[in-house]
Amino acid sequence: MSILIKNAYIATMDKDGTGEIQNGFLLIENNLISQIGDNSNGTADKIAADKGIDKIIDAKGAILMPGLSNTHTHLGMTLLRGYADDMALKDWLEAQIWPAEANLTAEDVYWGSLLGCLEMIRSGTTAFCDMYFFMDETAKAVEKAGIRGCLSYGMIEFGDVEKGNKEIAVNEKLVSDWQGKANGRITTMFGPHAPNTCSQAFIARAKAAAEKAGVGVQIHVLETEAELNYMKENFDMCSVHHLDAVDFWNTSKVPVIAAHCVWMSDGDIRLFAEKGVTVSHNPISNMKLASGIAPIQKMLDAGVSVTLGTDGCASNNTLNMFEEMKTAALLQKVGTMSPTALPAKAVVEMATINGGRVIDKQTGALKVGNKADMILVDTNKANAAPIFDVYSHLVYAAAGSDVKTMIVDGKILMEDYKILVLDEKEVIEKANERAHSLAARAQKC
Amino acid sequence: MSILIKNAYIATMDKDGTGEIQNGFLLIENNLISQIGDNSNGTADKIAADKGIDKIIDAKGAILMPGLSNTHTHLGMTLLRGYADDMALKDWLEAQIWPAEANLTAEDVYWGSLLGCLEMIRSGTTAFCDMYFFMDETAKAVEKAGIRGCLSYGMIEFGDVEKGNKEIAVNEKLVSDWQGKANGRITTMFGPHAPNTCSQAFIARAKAAAEKAGVGVQIHVLETEAELNYMKENFDMCSVHHLDAVDFWNTSKVPVIAAHCVWMSDGDIRLFAEKGVTVSHNPISNMKLASGIAPIQKMLDAGVSVTLGTDGCASNNTLNMFEEMKTAALLQKVGTMSPTALPAKAVVEMATINGGRVIDKQTGALKVGNKADMILVDTNKANAAPIFDVYSHLVYAAAGSDVKTMIVDGKILMEDYKILVLDEKEVIEKANERAHSLAARAQKC
Ligand SMILES: [Zn+2]
Ligand SMILES: [Zn+2]
Repeated sequence: MSILIKNAYIATMDKDGTGEIQNGFLLIENNLISQIGDNSNGTADKIAADKGIDKIIDAKGAILMPGLSNTHTHLGMTLLRGYADDMALKDWLEAQIWPAEANLTAEDVYWGSLLGCLEMIRSGTTAFCDMYFFMDETAKAVEKAGIRGCLSYGMIEFGDVEKGNKEIAVNEKLVSDWQGKANGRITTMFGPHAPNTCSQAFIARAKAAAEKAGVGVQIHVLETEAELNYMKENFDMCSVHHLDAVDFWNTSKVPVIAAHCVWMSDGDIRLFAEKGVTVSHNPISNMKLASGIAPIQKMLDAGVSVTLGTDGCASNNTLNMFEEMKTAALLQKVGTMSPTALPAKAVVEMATINGGRVIDKQTGALKVGNKADMILVDTNKANAAPIFDVYSHLVYAAAGSDVKTMIVDGKILMEDYKILVLDEKEVIEKANERAHSLAARAQKC
Repeated sequence: MSILIKNAYIATMDKDGTGEIQNGFLLIENNLISQIGDNSNGTADKIAADKGIDKIIDAKGAILMPGLSNTHTHLGMTLLRGYADDMALKDWLEAQIWPAEANLTAEDVYWGSLLGCLEMIRSGTTAFCDMYFFMDETAKAVEKAGIRGCLSYGMIEFGDVEKGNKEIAVNEKLVSDWQGKANGRITTMFGPHAPNTCSQAFIARAKAAAEKAGVGVQIHVLETEAELNYMKENFDMCSVHHLDAVDFWNTSKVPVIAAHCVWMSDGDIRLFAEKGVTVSHNPISNMKLASGIAPIQKMLDAGVSVTLGTDGCASNNTLNMFEEMKTAALLQKVGTMSPTALPAKAVVEMATINGGRVIDKQTGALKVGNKADMILVDTNKANAAPIFDVYSHLVYAAAGSDVKTMIVDGKILMEDYKILVLDEKEVIEKANERAHSLAARAQKC
């Protein structure tokens, strides 16, 4: 299968490469980008005349860019969108979310995950990192929906060695069953939940298991001040240094993704920069749960690779990375009281190249040899007039609903707003059904 | 003309009235709402059988609610969307925005305003308050687009009495030319710019002119800490008390809208509550320009009527009130470090009933006798599954692009995503043309 896209404004997001191309073309052969360049001399039409091209897309009036990567979510929770809001974190989690989750079935997670995939396709996200349970179901949804998923099992051990053994076994099975499946679209990681819900020894063990399997780890870190206080009281140090003591942050063998990182000290930031830890910044969730404002500009200044995540739908309540990009930029400015903090291009880099490469080194930028994961953003819209700077447009003015076409791994998932891989109506209906049945079950207890 | 809407989930936003109707109908006769109620016994079909109805809309799968009111913007600036970003306020204003504005022509403002109207229709805003110049052009755009506009001329006098005379005369002409035009869709106010760009005497004069004409006033107040410091240095008191000294906040004769109000003290808040001042909260602009976090929850607790505004497109960069609603809720939570601050329903009230009634007492809620200004929000979307609470959905999960149908003053402006009142393509093209020509002119200087 070959796809030729022509007449696009291309934002390659390739840091060492071509930057922006005003009138560009891009050729996909099989699942890879084989050519990219300027089209002002009609190069695309010459290529089409020379080669038999299966599919030509005229992208006039659209921005062609890498698909967005959402580096922290809990896809099965999509069924809990708006299940409980405007509550204190502890009440929200303990009185609402956990009881609902206790009633979740495999079927719920399948339809919740498929709904999440649909929402991500509609709003430009081609790849995501997940940490949840019933992960076989999320894997099946990803396989079907055609996007890229990096899946971990969310392991909570609370210092219980026997529970820990079982948790590791579940995550190991996920890795052995799914790593590299769907032509490599599905990858896996280990998912120790957090430093205050898992012991240091268990987290170290999860890291060792990940290194043995050759896959990465994802963990929640310093999301709340309560976690920081708990760690200091119990271990006399913060979560970052508590895990550094068992060399958890070492990324020489496998990548490490730390989600949230709201309550990081300057020393924590330096350590993450030295170690090469990838941070997943989740501004909407951090605002909604009143967790705080992560020091993202400081992290970027220190050289930390920062990416963006939506967190689960229960604390957002969408999977829309365009909202996340805009909120990240806005929050950092008001948080530092500096309007120059976190400029638009840095935000787009977080959502593309930075997020993409931690999921799959061959994604996140449009360049020859990379996998063909990309989106077309429609600019024939009121909110897209005028455009003086493409990054400003993408961050401050564009909406997830402006994404008209998505290609992942060389396959078209959505074309001109039409979803080609899923029965959209069925997914929405089934997910609604499962969500309301879940709520009824949870409220019985 | 009569329009009957049936099978809708109705959020009336009528504080003393019906609340939500699961399966409702609403009848519009001429430009007014003449009936509203439960449809579970097929009342709508009986009405249709009894009366000749010109147009029946089946709203199954949609939320029917009052149109949103944007109480602070500068519509002509829509051409400056993304013109300059990520800059310090002073540089942004003095080196970029003012030089561009100095080159604005009447034709620019006409097309910028029409573009703004188009964007507002697409994202659910039926009414707005404006403060800018070339206001005849904005009025013409509002007349053509079919929405509701409350227009003021942005008067800057800098203590110069002669300039002040001219400014007042321009605003008076706006009032006499346009007040009540387009069947009352166009109303007017006086727009003294701000306490640090206009003298106290001039602002008092503008207020007197407004009272004489029987129209309201709009003003920027305490947007930045710099303004607060300037006022304290020069007048030994804050902007609010400086203007209270000339009884500016008295609303017994005409409404007063204070935009931004970021740096309000508890005393300022009490005074606004006593006086009945309407606050226009502009969270996105306040974040983007790093102005600060307005104490909105405190204002609501004190009984101040708070509304929402997008500010101009150069500091947002959209006119999308759904983004503004979500951002308002999120910002207040992180700003107060309390996830219970500014719950969803309070935010929807700000954007509907609170904003509507300051523009036109007969708008902002769906009830018999009110003007027929309303929208249908599509819920057949991935991001709208599931919905456990309608207000949570509207604030945290819905997008401006979910608005499928808009009716203003009894006339359908958009139906099932099709704009009926404007040539969308022409508006976007002309606005783009004018914006790029403006930028070229501005960069010559
Ligand atoms: Zn999480
Ligand atoms: Zn303003």
